[in-house]
Amino acid sequence: MVLHLVPRWSMWLFWATPGWRKTAGALGASVKQRLMNYPWGSYSPWVCRSYSSASRSPEVMLTYERYPVQRLPFSKVSEEDMATFQRIIPGRVITDPEELEACNVDWLKTVRGCSKVLLKPRTSEEVSSILRHCHERNLAVNPQGGNTGMVGGSVPVFDEVILSTALMNQVISFHNVSGILVCQAGCVLEELSHYVQEHDFIMPLDLGAKGSCHIGGNVATNAGGLRFLRYGSLRGTVLGLEVVLADGTILNCLTSLRKDNTGYDLKQLFIGSEGTLGVITAVSILCPPRPKAVNVAFLGCPGFAEVLQTFTTCKAMLSEVLSAFEFMDAECMQLVRQHLHLASPVQESPFYVLIETSGSSAEHDAEKLGSFLEQVLGSGLVTDGTMATDQKKIQMLWALRERITEALSHDGYVFKYDISLPVERLYDLVTDLRTRLGSSAKHVVGYGHLGDGNLHLNVTAEAFSEALLGILEPYVYTWTAEQRGSVSAEHGVGFKKRHVLGYSKPPVAVQLMQQLKALLDPKGILNPYKTLPAQA
Amino acid sequence: MVLHLVPRWSMWLFWATPGWRKTAGALGASVKQRLMNYPWGSYSPWVCRSYSSASRSPEVMLTYERYPVQRLPFSKVSEEDMATFQRIIPGRVITDPEELEACNVDWLKTVRGCSKVLLKPRTSEEVSSILRHCHERNLAVNPQGGNTGMVGGSVPVFDEVILSTALMNQVISFHNVSGILVCQAGCVLEELSHYVQEHDFIMPLDLGAKGSCHIGGNVATNAGGLRFLRYGSLRGTVLGLEVVLADGTILNCLTSLRKDNTGYDLKQLFIGSEGTLGVITAVSILCPPRPKAVNVAFLGCPGFAEVLQTFTTCKAMLSEVLSAFEFMDAECMQLVRQHLHLASPVQESPFYVLIETSGSSAEHDAEKLGSFLEQVLGSGLVTDGTMATDQKKIQMLWALRERITEALSHDGYVFKYDISLPVERLYDLVTDLRTRLGSSAKHVVGYGHLGDGNLHLNVTAEAFSEALLGILEPYVYTWTAEQRGSVSAEHGVGFKKRHVLGYSKPPVAVQLMQQLKALLDPKGILNPYKTLPAQA
Repeated sequence: MVLHLVPRWSMWLFWATPGWRKTAGALGASVKQRLMNYPWGSYSPWVCRSYSSASRSPEVMLTYERYPVQRLPFSKVSEEDMATFQRIIPGRVITDPEELEACNVDWLKTVRGCSKVLLKPRTSEEVSSILRHCHERNLAVNPQGGNTGMVGGSVPVFDEVILSTALMNQVISFHNVSGILVCQAGCVLEELSHYVQEHDFIMPLDLGAKGSCHIGGNVATNAGGLRFLRYGSLRGTVLGLEVVLADGTILNCLTSLRKDNTGYDLKQLFIGSEGTLGVITAVSILCPPRPKAVNVAFLGCPGFAEVLQTFTTCKAMLSEVLSAFEFMDAECMQLVRQHLHLASPVQESPFYVLIETSGSSAEHDAEKLGSFLEQVLGSGLVTDGTMATDQKKIQMLWALRERITEALSHDGYVFKYDISLPVERLYDLVTDLRTRLGSSAKHVVGYGHLGDGNLHLNVTAEAFSEALLGILEPYVYTWTAEQRGSVSAEHGVGFKKRHVLGYSKPPVAVQLMQQLKALLDPKGILNPYKTLPAQA
Repeated sequence: MVLHLVPRWSMWLFWATPGWRKTAGALGASVKQRLMNYPWGSYSPWVCRSYSSASRSPEVMLTYERYPVQRLPFSKVSEEDMATFQRIIPGRVITDPEELEACNVDWLKTVRGCSKVLLKPRTSEEVSSILRHCHERNLAVNPQGGNTGMVGGSVPVFDEVILSTALMNQVISFHNVSGILVCQAGCVLEELSHYVQEHDFIMPLDLGAKGSCHIGGNVATNAGGLRFLRYGSLRGTVLGLEVVLADGTILNCLTSLRKDNTGYDLKQLFIGSEGTLGVITAVSILCPPRPKAVNVAFLGCPGFAEVLQTFTTCKAMLSEVLSAFEFMDAECMQLVRQHLHLASPVQESPFYVLIETSGSSAEHDAEKLGSFLEQVLGSGLVTDGTMATDQKKIQMLWALRERITEALSHDGYVFKYDISLPVERLYDLVTDLRTRLGSSAKHVVGYGHLGDGNLHLNVTAEAFSEALLGILEPYVYTWTAEQRGSVSAEHGVGFKKRHVLGYSKPPVAVQLMQQLKALLDPKGILNPYKTLPAQA
């Protein structure tokens, strides 16, 4: 799941919390523009996520000043290049410093490029012409969607040409029997979600960043998110892609077929490759029918062993209606209470679990959930619990889990890790780190998508500390590697994690990735300095 | 779905039909050996599928005599090569003509190679040593699993070394919380199915050929099957692979993580590449929990428009418990009655639909199915129907759909097509062909996995006829291409369909596939003459 300062049920919570404003209802493609019209209160996560102000960005150090990275010998954008871009996309070659600044800095405000040009094509043919020119001229290109990535993959590192999908936001077709949506890459996830809901379908993925992120970016980063447990990975739900290759060639694999065994499945190369192998320009995706009933249970568990047993029981008893199984530890609850004044709806417990069901019959689902709760409460796996069927209470329960990130940000500097582990070892790393860190850290917390084996491990401190970082890394990565886990479960590699790829992938795999990159992008112009480790 | 002469519920039906013997219970890795001990009755589909007799195979023409294909300049296996193989896998270098013959001929008895050596490694290291030697010596290799493929992909075309996964049949691990199974590539699907069922899980795929097919072959061919509608593609359920590359390098991506976004997802390259890019030696796969209740409804519909509307209603009302939506036309039913003496359980109708639900509550599922049936019967979408909850009747209903292939084989020579189409055009091709063929064909029938948009189109005639073939091809492929369909929904490309790849893939895609082949297997030794069109 993409980290979200924006809570999933933000609209409701905005009304309930002083200082918050109702903005979520108006969010969409032009969210940034509209948000700038609001006089902001003392704190708003939306500012962090979506607001882009030139006056704030000088705080962000240039990436090449902060990290040991050398500019590769790409050409520099010339006046002639600018004239060519103007011919290809007249009026959509952006050089305005404010708009450029917003696209040079990632939303976490941790990396910053210095691109001087932002291109906004509307069609795949325009993308093709742009890339053909850049390829010929050896100009580096940074493909950019909603710029909501967590690992610095969506902004330039140096002066790469920024190629934005922002104006490629048309739905091409929707089939209301099969639920297959075909659209351009720049469609905003939330807008697609509204669109298909009108036809009684839902998008197969949901993210905290849905108000800003583009479907093309979701696919390029293989986004996980809140519906992963139920509807699986984009590798299964994406049926087809149109991709423009580094030299401008358009690869049309935009089929709308559930089954197609004619040769190698080329689209898989581009899912999760973070724009380094090609630029995704259109997506065909299978949408599931909209569930008629949603229920949420929030439970307290006496230990992590009981959390695991509750999960096993849950999978057996809720089976096809289970749509989320999230967990958080007592320290998470403490931070949520302390910083956000949210109260636990159940007795204090070492662990909490949030279970969501989505089904076609409210009555059946409630009955299944009821039987399950009786079982886990009766057997002592769960010591206290509450169940919600109305949307307001469902939102309140989800907020406890979803606002942990926000609570952490109030606690000080946060060291963040997004890790996949075998489910039975998921929490051991948190316990280990508490012992290892002792009083060096304020809090060591663990939460995440237990159902997907995905731990969000966060360590807070008064301020950033090289010493603390030295205790954490590479320890966290080594620990993860020993369990054959993944050092990036869902956030991707981007710029910031490319040096730790080797903890999760053997040298043979990394070498093959480099060969694929060389095959598809021999000049290396597509999103350079990303995904793969720097070559010696 | 792989075509199956072996009915899914074959064991029960064997008892019920004179001349059939109860063999299914004893099926497994060594099924061929055991089947040879039975005195066969007048007709047995098992003979066609699993029996391999040197005395019958001379009927099968050598592939290179029947098709226009030239041997590529690979080396020939020498005495020194044989000695090397013996050193690598002592006692498992097979040259016995009978055993070789069984591996040279596909189970449909349509293609036949002339390999002189069959290798049976037990470990990935042995596969690696074999491939390293073959690569050095420029010896072509035909990787082979259960040899149940439909497109001639699993047998040699000339004298390729046959590399069988038959002895690589060990379960490596099973995790009974997450349901993640890790096993060697040669495990037989049905045996894995029994294994995980003991832990209350099921395999995410099920095929008619399950008694013989290997999981490695399933993955290498991206098998679809009977559970596709519910559990999706292997691209989502396969979590990791171990693959030996053409030069013997072992690529270990055998992780057991639901989420892993560390670089390009290399395993996807090998899923569905039919052994042409690497040899899959081990698989990590996510198994869903075993459903507690299964129901089947068999319905008659007055037209194909009503079949489509029934499907839409079904998806909305059965939603999460729907596990199959199959259809067959009146001519299918006629053939099943005529050749197999199976009676329709409902009134004669132009179309029939089989719907299966799998869920965690028998009561809830029956109630959902009941409401759905009331709705479709009341609105006239369905004119007659029957519902089964006990296994015996469920088997009888499934047999009507599953034994169509068998019934067709009794009707004469069968021209077979396995096509993906937009669901609303699925049956138009059948109607078109009936008009086009007139009296040249005995029967033109359509059936298949409507829920997956997958049509099995079959045309029967008294005997094979070049003239009839000329009317059918390329018409069927052109028609499919015009609808942006797939000329191979689930059977793959193999040897027999490589010349029609271009109907479903643009030249840019085919070219990129060829580049990938050249990158991963520069000498082209892995399963040559398969998947990709012959290069000029």
